Amino acid sequence: MQKVRRGSKNVLTIVVVLLSIFLTHLLSADDEDADLLKKAINIFGTLPQAMTSEKNPITSEKVKLGKILFYETRISVGGTVSCARCHPIGLYATDGLRKSIGNHCKVNPRNAPTILNAAGQISAHWIGNRKNVEDQARQSVIGPPSFGMPSYEAVVKKLKEMKGYGELFKKAFPIDNDPITVDNLAKAIGAFERTLVTPSHFDSFLKGDITALNRKEKGGLKTYIEADCIMCHSGPYVGGQMYETFGIFEPYWKYTKSEQIDEGRYVVTKNDADQYVFKVPILRNVGKTAPYFHDGSVDKLENAVWIMGKIQLGKDLNKAQVEEVVAFLKSLTGIIPEDALKIPLLPSMD
Amino acid sequence: MQKVRRGSKNVLTIVVVLLSIFLTHLLSADDEDADLLKKAINIFGTLPQAMTSEKNPITSEKVKLGKILFYETRISVGGTVSCARCHPIGLYATDGLRKSIGNHCKVNPRNAPTILNAAGQISAHWIGNRKNVEDQARQSVIGPPSFGMPSYEAVVKKLKEMKGYGELFKKAFPIDNDPITVDNLAKAIGAFERTLVTPSHFDSFLKGDITALNRKEKGGLKTYIEADCIMCHSGPYVGGQMYETFGIFEPYWKYTKSEQIDEGRYVVTKNDADQYVFKVPILRNVGKTAPYFHDGSVDKLENAVWIMGKIQLGKDLNKAQVEEVVAFLKSLTGIIPEDALKIPLLPSMD
Repeated sequence: MQKVRRGSKNVLTIVVVLLSIFLTHLLSADDEDADLLKKAINIFGTLPQAMTSEKNPITSEKVKLGKILFYETRISVGGTVSCARCHPIGLYATDGLRKSIGNHCKVNPRNAPTILNAAGQISAHWIGNRKNVEDQARQSVIGPPSFGMPSYEAVVKKLKEMKGYGELFKKAFPIDNDPITVDNLAKAIGAFERTLVTPSHFDSFLKGDITALNRKEKGGLKTYIEADCIMCHSGPYVGGQMYETFGIFEPYWKYTKSEQIDEGRYVVTKNDADQYVFKVPILRNVGKTAPYFHDGSVDKLENAVWIMGKIQLGKDLNKAQVEEVVAFLKSLTGIIPEDALKIPLLPSMD
Repeated sequence: MQKVRRGSKNVLTIVVVLLSIFLTHLLSADDEDADLLKKAINIFGTLPQAMTSEKNPITSEKVKLGKILFYETRISVGGTVSCARCHPIGLYATDGLRKSIGNHCKVNPRNAPTILNAAGQISAHWIGNRKNVEDQARQSVIGPPSFGMPSYEAVVKKLKEMKGYGELFKKAFPIDNDPITVDNLAKAIGAFERTLVTPSHFDSFLKGDITALNRKEKGGLKTYIEADCIMCHSGPYVGGQMYETFGIFEPYWKYTKSEQIDEGRYVVTKNDADQYVFKVPILRNVGKTAPYFHDGSVDKLENAVWIMGKIQLGKDLNKAQVEEVVAFLKSLTGIIPEDALKIPLLPSMD
């Protein structure tokens, strides 16, 4: 009996020890997750439902018109360019090209960034030479490598030639006497783009559902935070809030093998400090928007992440780290609003 | 009293006469409508729900893949051409150009016909040099002015590089060992296009609802029948069933002011009888698919109708006749299937 009792005691001890190890592990994993969540909430905040603007309030009539105009090729020189040409929604509003091709096969100076969540940024375009999505739309219609129209007047003339637009502009801008203007075109397209917020399962995580990210994605988020990626790519859009030199530790072209060296924001400001400075891009849907960087010089997200570590943070991320960061970044692939996935019918010519 | 009675009699006579005129008119209008409907049913028949093919049965998985491939630019040389480039659904699957612009700004030889209802035709393309919608899709990917790929193998290689396509092709062609082939691409796109039937209020008329067409549209239909437009443009798709010389009474270019003279089907057959012969286009949605004719040389539907009367029928239709025929033709503007108006998300590169 003594032996049996001693044996029972031993078994009990083992069970208690194992249980306590298990519970400690569980608790510490929970603690770790809770800690990660807390940090993440501080770093990323909450994704809004739409990217509102006081100057351009979102109305359903403006969004309706804006979505139609988004597909309108007939207001471009040559009739082949629309917003959707470089930002096809089915490709997460990028075109898969290194640099977009506009009217008459003109090559755009930089890679087409996605317009999903883009209205949440401090400015538009890689070098911040467009104030906001409205300004981007406005300037595109006369941009030589994009729509290439000779003047705003020429755009208005084309719009007025298509009978259906009169009523659409009137409904979207009811107090305007002569609503077909390029400013209103820009506001309508801007209003549409301001609806293009794409929540993902990372947002479920941020709302407290710790299971919304798997172990690898959480590991990636942790590495992403600890490696200091959040120095630039933070906030609800995971970037888009500041400018930064591309290549802090080493020249970027050494790693991207870029064909041309782009002076970045220097082109806009002519300030030496802005040499090779670019707007920090948003990383939402980054798993769907290859190729990467301002010149689309890198095809694979894994390579882009490693290069960023190397030249922005001075860190040589190992394969496992890169892979888990990529897993985290892919958790930012979001849901495109249903209405934006519906093709609008365009007004006919007469 | 006699006077009064005589007066009453007179009033009664007038009432009876007016009533009988009114009733005769009503009855004759009804008779006329019934007669028109009967003729129309004989001439146009019934629009099917889908344009089926024994060789390529429509399945939901094929249609799903086909719709994705329809938007796929990454299988074209230069990465800017997809089916949707020349056939954007929002523009009733035409591009509004005289002649479509393909890869590297190459100009296509003829105007892009709509692909709505196109699978119901005897062949594809203006000169019938594509057997059907599947053949059209297959040849497009290597067509020099369209996708411009160097070979079918190059297309397959591109598709295989994009991870998501493996599963999509497997589901669409479950018994194939190696389902990613250009034949299957063609079948999938073809299956999608075979769903693109667009019923309009003309079809409600054909089903017996005489009120579905207004007076002007019915007048136009009557003129359309009496002027012999139905010699070629008949059947459920209102055309697409035969080849015909363009310019029977006079050379077409005299009226269309075409920049080049197109020899039409002669290019395919080298048969002298096929000089200036083209496939009779379908007229469904013709009110939405300007510009007109094989070279898009005519912008206005009114002009196109008048020219057709002149050079095909030897008839100088007057303004009123042209206007009512146009009103009838616009009653052929149909409803695009809801699923075709939803943008599919494309597989990402990795």
